[in-house]
Amino acid sequence: MEQRISLVTLGVADVAASRAFYERLGWKASSASMDEVVFFDMGGMIFGLYGQSDLSKDTGLTNTPTPGCTTLAYNTRSREEVDHFMGVVEEAGATTLKPPVDMSWGGYVGYFADPDGHPWEISWVPHFPVLEDGSLDIPA
Amino acid sequence: MEQRISLVTLGVADVAASRAFYERLGWKASSASMDEVVFFDMGGMIFGLYGQSDLSKDTGLTNTPTPGCTTLAYNTRSREEVDHFMGVVEEAGATTLKPPVDMSWGGYVGYFADPDGHPWEISWVPHFPVLEDGSLDIPA
Repeated sequence: MEQRISLVTLGVADVAASRAFYERLGWKASSASMDEVVFFDMGGMIFGLYGQSDLSKDTGLTNTPTPGCTTLAYNTRSREEVDHFMGVVEEAGATTLKPPVDMSWGGYVGYFADPDGHPWEISWVPHFPVLEDGSLDIPA
Repeated sequence: MEQRISLVTLGVADVAASRAFYERLGWKASSASMDEVVFFDMGGMIFGLYGQSDLSKDTGLTNTPTPGCTTLAYNTRSREEVDHFMGVVEEAGATTLKPPVDMSWGGYVGYFADPDGHPWEISWVPHFPVLEDGSLDIPA
């Protein structure tokens, strides 16, 4: 199998409300989006929003899902940007889980939850520089 | 905020066991990986494996995480590849959640769980062709 992920999909309580939150970050949904499912182009892979009950039907995992087993991260180009974007997401309706802190390994990281509780990090990670096009420079 | 995700990190029970599963798919971990955390380069974004207890400490979400609120997807170039790769992941130790089925919207999708129960789809989605470099062609 090629080394890639095509989609990351969050199960959400209310697709429209969740879409509105991510659009408040300045993101633009694909015209292929529908009422039941929303697609954001993340540079050739898709970030999807999909009703949790539909998602449970698809996967067959009927246990109640509890956000917190997966984190998504937005890495920044500087330490200052972490503070800045924690403010941006809070303004958009996110809940701060942890204000930015210095990590033992040299980074600076804050955590927030989206409207469904899905955790995200906003991270400055000097070891993985963010390139011009937004992708990460990752050692082979 | 730029429209991108830098990392997707799964909380796992045993980092080494989980790493071994994904390596059996033919994926190669970055040399920046450590005992506690593993990084796979997914074309400028990172797929991470991290101990669930460490992840809970980081996010502050102390409720027991239940996989199933997020799905990851690997899209294929053909319908036949779905059947093929469902076999590949099973061989590698995955559990089939749902054998591939024709979806009402025209795709062909199978679901499997990784060793921690994190659900993945293997999907043939004619609406979003997989390009030469593995990225998706997504309508603006």
